[in-house]
Amino acid sequence: MAKEKDEKGITVKKEADMPEWYGQVVVKSQLADYSPIKGCMVIRPRGYAIWQKITDKLNFLIQSKGVQNAYFPLFIPESFFKKEAEHAKGFSPEVAWIAGKEEGERLAIRPTSETIIYDSYSKWIRSWRDLPLKMNQWCNIVRWEVSDVKLFLRSREFLWQEGHCVYATEKECEDEALGYLDDYRKVSEELLAVPVLLGQKTEKEKFAGAKKTFTIEGFMPDGKALQMGTSHNLGQGFAKAFGINYTDNEEKSQLPWQNSWGISTRMIGAVVMTHSDDKGIVLPPLLAENKLVIIPIIFEESKDKVLAECKSLAKKLKEFSPILDDRDEYTSGWKYNQYELIGVPLRVELGPKDLEKKQVVVVRRDTGKKEFVPQTDLSHRITEILSTMQKEMLESARKRLKEATLEVADWKGFLKVINNRKLVLATFCGEENCEEEIKTKTGGATSRCIPLSWLGQSESQKQKDLAGKKCVHCGSNAKVNCYFAKNY
Amino acid sequence: MAKEKDEKGITVKKEADMPEWYGQVVVKSQLADYSPIKGCMVIRPRGYAIWQKITDKLNFLIQSKGVQNAYFPLFIPESFFKKEAEHAKGFSPEVAWIAGKEEGERLAIRPTSETIIYDSYSKWIRSWRDLPLKMNQWCNIVRWEVSDVKLFLRSREFLWQEGHCVYATEKECEDEALGYLDDYRKVSEELLAVPVLLGQKTEKEKFAGAKKTFTIEGFMPDGKALQMGTSHNLGQGFAKAFGINYTDNEEKSQLPWQNSWGISTRMIGAVVMTHSDDKGIVLPPLLAENKLVIIPIIFEESKDKVLAECKSLAKKLKEFSPILDDRDEYTSGWKYNQYELIGVPLRVELGPKDLEKKQVVVVRRDTGKKEFVPQTDLSHRITEILSTMQKEMLESARKRLKEATLEVADWKGFLKVINNRKLVLATFCGEENCEEEIKTKTGGATSRCIPLSWLGQSESQKQKDLAGKKCVHCGSNAKVNCYFAKNY
Repeated sequence: MAKEKDEKGITVKKEADMPEWYGQVVVKSQLADYSPIKGCMVIRPRGYAIWQKITDKLNFLIQSKGVQNAYFPLFIPESFFKKEAEHAKGFSPEVAWIAGKEEGERLAIRPTSETIIYDSYSKWIRSWRDLPLKMNQWCNIVRWEVSDVKLFLRSREFLWQEGHCVYATEKECEDEALGYLDDYRKVSEELLAVPVLLGQKTEKEKFAGAKKTFTIEGFMPDGKALQMGTSHNLGQGFAKAFGINYTDNEEKSQLPWQNSWGISTRMIGAVVMTHSDDKGIVLPPLLAENKLVIIPIIFEESKDKVLAECKSLAKKLKEFSPILDDRDEYTSGWKYNQYELIGVPLRVELGPKDLEKKQVVVVRRDTGKKEFVPQTDLSHRITEILSTMQKEMLESARKRLKEATLEVADWKGFLKVINNRKLVLATFCGEENCEEEIKTKTGGATSRCIPLSWLGQSESQKQKDLAGKKCVHCGSNAKVNCYFAKNY
Repeated sequence: MAKEKDEKGITVKKEADMPEWYGQVVVKSQLADYSPIKGCMVIRPRGYAIWQKITDKLNFLIQSKGVQNAYFPLFIPESFFKKEAEHAKGFSPEVAWIAGKEEGERLAIRPTSETIIYDSYSKWIRSWRDLPLKMNQWCNIVRWEVSDVKLFLRSREFLWQEGHCVYATEKECEDEALGYLDDYRKVSEELLAVPVLLGQKTEKEKFAGAKKTFTIEGFMPDGKALQMGTSHNLGQGFAKAFGINYTDNEEKSQLPWQNSWGISTRMIGAVVMTHSDDKGIVLPPLLAENKLVIIPIIFEESKDKVLAECKSLAKKLKEFSPILDDRDEYTSGWKYNQYELIGVPLRVELGPKDLEKKQVVVVRRDTGKKEFVPQTDLSHRITEILSTMQKEMLESARKRLKEATLEVADWKGFLKVINNRKLVLATFCGEENCEEEIKTKTGGATSRCIPLSWLGQSESQKQKDLAGKKCVHCGSNAKVNCYFAKNY
């Protein structure tokens, strides 16, 4: 914090101009910065620390399921892409190529690593004893689609993890694909306090080369959905294309089933958009490096005593990695603004009156709520406040998501909700053409997902639910319930 | 361990053909594998787990010095390279370029990140309050120099960390450059049990763009030195080239001083070469995920009792993350070979006799030494054995390094030692031409470093030490003491 230079704060309101507000809040709080390379970003230490917390939590979750981390090459031979036709078609516009280094064949920079990883799997997998095979890599990814970078949300290079597992049966493959999706939900809700919808993508929106794509979808305050993580049941297409076979326990050769799944630094964008405000970043306590900042309220006559007490407080509260800002050259007000900008969850103020009363003032970053806390009870009460704050941030985001979600029965209602920047739940025929028309007519609304809660019902229940219902757009028989929204 | 397929083990002796042995031991123990892209490697989970331990230890060391992790773009505009002339010259043959994506300017894939990082620093640094600035990134690096990959040791893509710090004074800059070098020594010696020489590179061997380069050098059993980490005092050249200025506390504009420092996945190659043997990998206990494997010695009549006891042992010893291999379909001998191949530090055997005597047999992977340990004392004794093993592995490697290092006084002696594949310590004039001739005449011997212990003496002591001494090769007055060897 000795290094703040931008003292201006955020100059636009979140409600007035969210894209401009977002760019300012990310840059001025030093989470990330623009780069001289069009479409790329620099992740600064405060942003990287959030990514580190996400990786730690996800590593813990997937390692307890037997997933091991590994690292595969950045480069992918062009011929590998072409082996799975849908996959090649889906990714080819986004691929960056290396200039003339390999004879005869171009090398791509990975836009995703299915092909290069499955080439290795075809060497490593021989028998049923080798299954399931569960690996993950943390790496950088390049997709040359955009020149207009949106920090964390859309850039030509980003960081992510990609899990790649191989199974003997489709049931195990799909069950686990859903299990990793639920790990993503945990990361998003329990750590980032960002509520998500779990669902399956439509045929049009699924991953290039997948049989089914599952997704967690967030909904941002500007009325756009954000795809925050996906998990694919890849079926047997890649196994076939890459010659991954195993001998079962009756010595017969079999094709295995595969899934792949990924989340990225985009998660950081979701947490910023969901919680932050006109003053700056609001971080859920679990994401913050420093849970609190101690600010002495200085008057000349009591200065020494107050500073001494603040130092002693910093020691007592060291489990919360406190910042003690006892710099003379800045006013308390200036300091308040700076720590609100960077999103330290709690501010602890201590002045001469508090010294007398053996108390401190604790202020929550998210609500601004003040509380006088006796010094005897401080550590215990701070733990409680942090835990309440984490919980309430998720609850209030959940409430907003719920309020933003509207079930509509007809096309007129659909248009109205989309124009109001809300999330539609509607019955849908599931056809790609129909979905394309919806997108054109609404200026960008796409299907987000078919809710897992709806898909998980019995077939008869689903039939009953859809009986007599028509697609919200084309009027043919409805096949599914589906969320629609504009999106990032 | 359910997944071993290669039952053949290593088919050549380490002494007979070290390059072939090395390739086999790395691949068969599943640390890494070759890739379909020439010059690249796949880091498999067992290798990646070692890298994770290295990153954890180094993160701990540098974070306690105030270094923060960040992430900068993979791409570097061509014009950035050209800003620092020496740097551009040094790296240009190794650079891979992106094919036609940016108008007007080519984009390189980072072979090192000084230029792209210092462009950001020039925006971020304004006043003395911003210094020191200490950042590090963990990332992948591409240097297109070799097509003949040596797993972990030399490949077109590898993983590394690069630290980049900015200071107000040269003294602080160089002191800290040496401090990070000492952190590398700690990682190498305390974790990998690989002893290193600390020194400064000659003018000829220093980093392109640096004022001084410091290095840790390992010496491998095949008589080649291995540069394991470097730390550079960059002087003010990059600051000048990239316009990094700060206002000092008298409001004057100043050029700061910079250092940069890196270690890579090459460290894993060093640990394999130093300790492993004809049976496979030998890992220092601190590097091993599973510190021990429990193998029941099965006879039909006592099978149930022995298996029950082994299961109970596995629970009692869970602090060591034990593997319990109670598979029926493999013999004990086969299992011994497999766990020796992958380098589990301790093997714990338990058979009917041990059951009677309430003991187990503990076998050290590095020495093969067997010990009967009473079950009552087991956890305590295993802790001791692991700690002794870690210590003795470093000591015995240190002994070999010492024995391989020979001080020579003349050129004849120099040639003899180099031809015997040892490490030379000799007086040297320090001239680039002379060093070039040494390399040509010896078929590849290069200066490794000027020992820090020697450099750290007083000037008068150094003068005294060199008085009357000549360069071991050209016979002109000696300027330094210097190590020479062939190298990786």
